[in-house]
Amino acid sequence: MSLMDPREIAFQLDHLLDLDTLLTRDRFRHLDRSAIDQVLETAATLAEDHFAPHAAEADRHEPEREGGVGKVVMLPDVKRATDAFAEAGFLAAHHDEERGGLQLPWTVVQACFTFFQAANVATAAYPFLTIGAANLIDAFGSPGQKDRFMQPMLTGRFFGTMALSEPQAGSSLADIRTRATPNPDGSYSITGTKQWISAGEHELSENIVHMVLAKIEGAPPGVKGISLFIVPRFRVNDDGSLGPDNDVRLVSLLHKMGYRGTTSTILSFGEEGRCQGFLVGQPHQGLAYMFHMMNEARIGVGLGAAALGYAGYRYSLDYARTRPQGRRPDAKDPTSPMLPIVEHADVKRMILQQKAASEGAIALCLLCARLVDEQKTAETPEAREKAGLLLDILTPVAKSWPSEHCLEANKWAIQILGGYGYTRDYPVEQLYRDNRLNPIHEGTYGIQAQDLLGRKVWQHNGASLTLLADEIAATIKDAASDPALAPFADALGRALATVDATTRALAAERMAGRVNELLSNAVAYLEMFGHTVLAWIWLKQARAAAADLAAGRGDAAYLNGKLAACRYFYAWELPKIDAQARLLQSLDRTTLDTDSAWL
Amino acid sequence: MSLMDPREIAFQLDHLLDLDTLLTRDRFRHLDRSAIDQVLETAATLAEDHFAPHAAEADRHEPEREGGVGKVVMLPDVKRATDAFAEAGFLAAHHDEERGGLQLPWTVVQACFTFFQAANVATAAYPFLTIGAANLIDAFGSPGQKDRFMQPMLTGRFFGTMALSEPQAGSSLADIRTRATPNPDGSYSITGTKQWISAGEHELSENIVHMVLAKIEGAPPGVKGISLFIVPRFRVNDDGSLGPDNDVRLVSLLHKMGYRGTTSTILSFGEEGRCQGFLVGQPHQGLAYMFHMMNEARIGVGLGAAALGYAGYRYSLDYARTRPQGRRPDAKDPTSPMLPIVEHADVKRMILQQKAASEGAIALCLLCARLVDEQKTAETPEAREKAGLLLDILTPVAKSWPSEHCLEANKWAIQILGGYGYTRDYPVEQLYRDNRLNPIHEGTYGIQAQDLLGRKVWQHNGASLTLLADEIAATIKDAASDPALAPFADALGRALATVDATTRALAAERMAGRVNELLSNAVAYLEMFGHTVLAWIWLKQARAAAADLAAGRGDAAYLNGKLAACRYFYAWELPKIDAQARLLQSLDRTTLDTDSAWL
Repeated sequence: MSLMDPREIAFQLDHLLDLDTLLTRDRFRHLDRSAIDQVLETAATLAEDHFAPHAAEADRHEPEREGGVGKVVMLPDVKRATDAFAEAGFLAAHHDEERGGLQLPWTVVQACFTFFQAANVATAAYPFLTIGAANLIDAFGSPGQKDRFMQPMLTGRFFGTMALSEPQAGSSLADIRTRATPNPDGSYSITGTKQWISAGEHELSENIVHMVLAKIEGAPPGVKGISLFIVPRFRVNDDGSLGPDNDVRLVSLLHKMGYRGTTSTILSFGEEGRCQGFLVGQPHQGLAYMFHMMNEARIGVGLGAAALGYAGYRYSLDYARTRPQGRRPDAKDPTSPMLPIVEHADVKRMILQQKAASEGAIALCLLCARLVDEQKTAETPEAREKAGLLLDILTPVAKSWPSEHCLEANKWAIQILGGYGYTRDYPVEQLYRDNRLNPIHEGTYGIQAQDLLGRKVWQHNGASLTLLADEIAATIKDAASDPALAPFADALGRALATVDATTRALAAERMAGRVNELLSNAVAYLEMFGHTVLAWIWLKQARAAAADLAAGRGDAAYLNGKLAACRYFYAWELPKIDAQARLLQSLDRTTLDTDSAWL
Repeated sequence: MSLMDPREIAFQLDHLLDLDTLLTRDRFRHLDRSAIDQVLETAATLAEDHFAPHAAEADRHEPEREGGVGKVVMLPDVKRATDAFAEAGFLAAHHDEERGGLQLPWTVVQACFTFFQAANVATAAYPFLTIGAANLIDAFGSPGQKDRFMQPMLTGRFFGTMALSEPQAGSSLADIRTRATPNPDGSYSITGTKQWISAGEHELSENIVHMVLAKIEGAPPGVKGISLFIVPRFRVNDDGSLGPDNDVRLVSLLHKMGYRGTTSTILSFGEEGRCQGFLVGQPHQGLAYMFHMMNEARIGVGLGAAALGYAGYRYSLDYARTRPQGRRPDAKDPTSPMLPIVEHADVKRMILQQKAASEGAIALCLLCARLVDEQKTAETPEAREKAGLLLDILTPVAKSWPSEHCLEANKWAIQILGGYGYTRDYPVEQLYRDNRLNPIHEGTYGIQAQDLLGRKVWQHNGASLTLLADEIAATIKDAASDPALAPFADALGRALATVDATTRALAAERMAGRVNELLSNAVAYLEMFGHTVLAWIWLKQARAAAADLAAGRGDAAYLNGKLAACRYFYAWELPKIDAQARLLQSLDRTTLDTDSAWL
């Protein structure tokens, strides 16, 4: 069994992501479809050969601190995998050719990442964070910073992290205490403690570049006083060689339920007063800069959750096809042969949930990646702006929907395997443990809901929401022309109307300044909104599949699977939004009015 | 923080379980309320002193096989806990005084068990299984079998297991292959392999009594040919002393995601042809007998899931009260002090979900235990029969609803702790891992749904369902008289009508013999039915709390908490059933019509 059905990414690229148009853009003229296929093939092979084989082993043997020093040791397989990843050029895949990159679309880079995350999400986290940190320097760093810190990240000499949270301030970045004091040479002295720093210490690369949020002395209070710094683990000389240790200390390793192969650390900066940091961009703009990386990371987290969901789907499907157990409910003869469990209706339901959640989530996250490309390369400023507005409103959904529903998918993968699924001899329990991180990091589920309902829905006078509604309406109109899909188009139209009515009810709260009331049930809004977006994604997929089937193109079984997953989503999932809408429209005060002393 | 709020069990016993009436029955005349309180207090102390302290340690250090022999070693704390449990008389708590028991109501025994399961569900599994096996012999064994095998289980000299599943036949008991061959002395020679046998091997007791399902040679095929045997690990001499090894071999230990302190084993019986078993009751009646134990075990599994949910609720609430983070959405001043996170609306939601799920689930399972007592001790045959009918239909719900929704509760407990919750330094991730077993063992989620919709709803011409509907209607009528509760009474009335309409739609399928169609969406029925039952449980609790508040009895904050949890359940949970009802009433064929080749 291969990790990904090879038809899946091709379907997405051709039917939902309009790769052909993207490849006509100046930036991508050096590429054609066969080059893209080759990149995908390389990623798939690398993931199967170097990432998948040690996923279980890395879970059993977590990174450990060696002796009393700050060194962290881990399975050698991890370094072999990250080296191979770097060697194949994936760390620089979307960067300019003049920087040694492949200048690939971000969409393709993310599609490749799906393979690595499905194979081994914990090992994939090291390049994931390095790519993110490099992108941040690329977007806001000075030319000198790019040469000194980013360029070595593109080849894997240096790896990267993002260092936001602190022990007393997890989700509440306004309350960070890490300090930056200006030095006469223009650098800053950094002091403070950061927590939950993934990949914060390891021996996979020569150096680690921490992207650190800190406050310059005298900065305004709250998030308006946050600046962004490059803080390397070892200083870097003008010639690019490593200088002395930069006074970044590993305080301790954190031991997690899953994602165990990725070190999670507490780091202290400047205990000996020798930690040098370099301001990125302007002072006090750090949060805005970091959001650039966090937005990208949020989509990446969603894609990781989707990939884990997909891996469980594939594994449990394979198991269900080969495991005989039981008979149909109407079978009377106990000596008749047992059925493969995939033939039981409830097992089909559990497979369909996984397929609908994970393929839908992959499609959503890749659509977001496509919007990143569109934002950068579309022909007109209007098209670029439009892509950005759509991306803004889809980002919290792309982070949170997969995190919640592909975790549920992994739950069903375990259930299909039954007792076997609950043992550590099969991979599905690890997928479930790994995936449980995703609703937490890069902004919790609740934070995403606040971002959506507190900010994105209303921004630019509702422009993002209007654009998204227009896109959905266009899909409805298109699908309604196919009689077989018309009922789904109708249902999506009703869902869109439900979202609209609910948003209007909440707009009144917002206009009246009742922001606590507005946000008290935000997760219900996120759920309702997310399911509607996924229903849209599924109708787009069904429309493409039906067209291919009608034209006799492609693999009929695969295409019928897309239609079945769409039917599942509309029968079992989408109707859930009505209850959420009723709660929201009634401005339910249950959570607000519950005194914490009663709990 | 104590494991259980001491007010909780008292509230249940007084308001929902009518303990006072139970104590008037002949069997319990030796008891009064203060004796019950003392038992509960003993259980609480024992759970905190002997079960809770090693819960995390037993998770980190699983039972291991020692050397090449079949011996299994584990933390000594486990034996200290099970010894203390036996010494306090809990293994015999509900047994006759003449057997050395305390002759306590099963309701009280189960209430006590909640403490042990909340403290350490894996260690509690050893007495849990022993009590179940002893009950099975008590119900169906011969006097000689009771003396020889059951009596030593009441003091903890012997422990018990149930051995149903086999590697090729997990949920499908019709396909078991373990064989029993009659010996001239009336015993049987047992040969076969059993899998997933919890507590199948350990050194906690002198002997282990396996309750084994096997087929006597020449038995009818399928479930009608299954017999039940007592198969001790060591033979037992007439004087009660241990005889030779009985040829039961540990093949291997299984390594689970959670519940790690409980050994899970593959056992082989009769490899050397020396495994002696003793038929319980009549030949070929084994499944019916075993269901006696499994029904009880199903309620126990539900209670375990509820207890794990409750433990997470208590822990995350305690954390939320003391962890400062962030401010209200309308707070403008970033220098204002941070709030304890319990004050955030979405954290309240996550606490309320946990409270509603776990307290509701405990109430449901204890209600089932109360029906067991009623079935045995009610004054009239009619009342006893009625209790049995109600118990029948509630049992699949008591097994499955807590397993699903208290697992979800544990998910929210982790979420409240954020990154901390995802580390192994805090107990909530273990609760989540432990709880993931509960929708699998003692009949999977799907199997419970088939039991409910395939059997219990229709049995005795719908008598169970009618009785339950009458009970719910009585609660509605009663609550409607309180204007503050009338809206909930209305909502529950609508839910009951929804269940009724859905059941009628499905009855037509059943009458037409379309049993595959009837059962294809059974889990949606189980969910709809379960939520309605829980809404009933919550209205009963709210009614009692409101009455106490009105009368100035009890702790107002605690009672307001009951009302808040009821409000949460009716606002956030109960409305979910409408989507399920629509799916069911439309006789949706998505799962049936999906060809497995498309998946």
